Amino acid sequence: MTEKSPIIIDLRFDRDSVLRALPEAFPGRPVIDMGDPENRSRDLSQAAYAVVWKPDPDLFRRASGLKAIFSGGAGVDHILSNYQLPDLPIVRFVDRSLTDRMSEWVVWQCLYHLRNGSIYTEQQRSRIWREIAEQPEARDVTVGIMGLGVLGADAAAKLKVMGFQVIGWSRSKKHIAGVETFDASGLEAFLAQTDILVGLLPLTEDTRGIYDRALFSKLSRTGVLGGPIFLNAGRGGSQKEEELAACLADGTLKAASLDVFVKEPLDRNSPLWAMPNVLMTPHAAASSDVRALFRHVEEQIGRLERGEPLQFVVDRTSGY
Amino acid sequence: MTEKSPIIIDLRFDRDSVLRALPEAFPGRPVIDMGDPENRSRDLSQAAYAVVWKPDPDLFRRASGLKAIFSGGAGVDHILSNYQLPDLPIVRFVDRSLTDRMSEWVVWQCLYHLRNGSIYTEQQRSRIWREIAEQPEARDVTVGIMGLGVLGADAAAKLKVMGFQVIGWSRSKKHIAGVETFDASGLEAFLAQTDILVGLLPLTEDTRGIYDRALFSKLSRTGVLGGPIFLNAGRGGSQKEEELAACLADGTLKAASLDVFVKEPLDRNSPLWAMPNVLMTPHAAASSDVRALFRHVEEQIGRLERGEPLQFVVDRTSGY
Ligand SMILES: NC(=O)c1ccc[n+]([C@@H]2O[C@H](COP(=O)([O-])OP(=O)(O)OC[C@H]3O[C@@H](n4cnc5c(N)ncnc54)[C@H](OP(=O)(O)O)[C@@H]3O)[C@@H](O)[C@H]2O)c1
Ligand SMILES: NC(=O)c1ccc[n+]([C@@H]2O[C@H](COP(=O)([O-])OP(=O)(O)OC[C@H]3O[C@@H](n4cnc5c(N)ncnc54)[C@H](OP(=O)(O)O)[C@@H]3O)[C@@H](O)[C@H]2O)c1
Repeated sequence: MTEKSPIIIDLRFDRDSVLRALPEAFPGRPVIDMGDPENRSRDLSQAAYAVVWKPDPDLFRRASGLKAIFSGGAGVDHILSNYQLPDLPIVRFVDRSLTDRMSEWVVWQCLYHLRNGSIYTEQQRSRIWREIAEQPEARDVTVGIMGLGVLGADAAAKLKVMGFQVIGWSRSKKHIAGVETFDASGLEAFLAQTDILVGLLPLTEDTRGIYDRALFSKLSRTGVLGGPIFLNAGRGGSQKEEELAACLADGTLKAASLDVFVKEPLDRNSPLWAMPNVLMTPHAAASSDVRALFRHVEEQIGRLERGEPLQFVVDRTSGY
Repeated sequence: MTEKSPIIIDLRFDRDSVLRALPEAFPGRPVIDMGDPENRSRDLSQAAYAVVWKPDPDLFRRASGLKAIFSGGAGVDHILSNYQLPDLPIVRFVDRSLTDRMSEWVVWQCLYHLRNGSIYTEQQRSRIWREIAEQPEARDVTVGIMGLGVLGADAAAKLKVMGFQVIGWSRSKKHIAGVETFDASGLEAFLAQTDILVGLLPLTEDTRGIYDRALFSKLSRTGVLGGPIFLNAGRGGSQKEEELAACLADGTLKAASLDVFVKEPLDRNSPLWAMPNVLMTPHAAASSDVRALFRHVEEQIGRLERGEPLQFVVDRTSGY
């Protein structure tokens, strides 16, 4: 039996999660864990694969024998924009668990805003017992999802089950049961119907800074929630953060739930931290389960080595 | 055409909601609105129906000609326990909108606890960027629902869609796809598997004070959430509130979401208000939509007047 080709692991993830997952991962395959200081100056030229999340700047130069690169997350902007990448297939992470986690976050946040979570928290703090009269229900509210890929489509289906009206926007037109969809050219019509905007776009040259004042100003202002609400769990680079904060301050947006930011960790001086109408999570909406990631990578390597086509390969031109 | 029999409206609801709904309700039927001071001492003996929520103590004595009583909400404990009731059918409120609203609340709260909402809120307040490592997902968590009636069954189905493991307990055994169910005798086995307990029971002699220290002590302590969580959106009278607060203080319960209390509004001195592991809403989980209530009542009156059997009639013996 010839030895399996080595794999490099270079993941800026919670270190314990990686260490816990590694022992059972990649049976029979030599693993070069870049988190281990011993490997810092090791020869990487024999490695055939690399699983990366914000890897060492030198990695792709040193690992000159790679056949495929695996992103540790669903997005690949972290490598496409910052590295001189060899011309190799880049496989992104697509996984049931990741998808479910993202929909948990999206449904949680939509319900939180629908059901006036911030008002009730505030009232509790002041020991005020007061029911909000005329509480709308989910079916009175339209959630518009930007990005109808793996994550957007799942969130759409689950929001529908919870009763929301759901519409969606993507580059190419999609067909999803019970969901009115728009393609790139239909952005204005899409925004005009949207009460809660959910950002699930990848970060590309086309989507950088797409969430700006001009866009927020086109959202529906006639809905039962009293003003548009913005959720972003795609990438922070898609939001113009100063315009976002200004729109949250002047009422162009009623509220927001933000998981992603232009620069992470978010600067301690950002006004977003203290805005009463902002709920923040630290890029935690759908973290990769490391065990599931390694299973997915091993499966794709199996395909490659059996001569089958890789799945979830990124289109370097479109950038996702 | 003979005139339709008059109907009494005696609802301790948000007054504006009642006033907005009344003009379109009960076409051709004389309405006696007890919220109008002019009706305070009016002769009520000609009225055939009454729609009530915590009505005037004297109502049923004065309205001696009633043929049916309609509860303004899904529960009937508010009239069964406090009034000398004539021997008439009592119809409770069952409605798509009410059911959907309750499931919104239940799913919102389950996701809030699953996704560590209180920790992230606290971190945001302190401008701390820290992802919780090893975030469990819904399928790692078992939600146990006490009460598998109209509301419990709908919540179960929606929690399943969100990925949770769901089990349920009711007086008589139920059959729900994908949900392990227990009847009254299976309470201990049910509790031992439950990570998040959801109370959706009616208040009856059998369920009064059922949520006590002894019960909370039987919940699973081995789950990924690090301790059992209690949600109550049924009736406050089912919880022993001092024991509940003590269990939340000493770790027998990790956290709770409470919509209902023994006495409402909750006393300003209750320790529950200020507990960091308690999220409260003021009996607002699923408020009756007054328009939907009036439609439901008119529909049931139609059935009665056509000689068809009433639906959703309460069993006076079991108390729900
Ligand atoms: N916050 C977190 O924890 C977290 C976790 C995982 C992922 N994410 C982010 O979520 C993103 C989406 O993930 P996914 O798996 O759903 O990706 P995906 O399957 O590739 O879907 C991307 C969607 O965005 C649409 N899109 C891309 N560029 C567009 C443009 N210029 N105009 C209009 N629509 C455009 C695509 O349109 P077409 O369908 O026409 O191609 C597609 O519907 C990832 O890229 C990542 O950045 C965040
Ligand atoms: N917080 C709010 O805003 C709000 C709003 C609406 C309703 N509620 C409360 O929610 C309650 C449930 O509503 P629903 O429409 O779902 O009622 P339902 O259809 O009558 O269902 C009641 C469920 O509880 C079970 N049950 C009753 N007594 C029991 C006992 N002693 N032991 C075990 N199981 C018992 C019943 O068992 P069987 O199936 O065997 O009969 C049934 O599954 C209402 O009574 C009301 O108090 C609260």
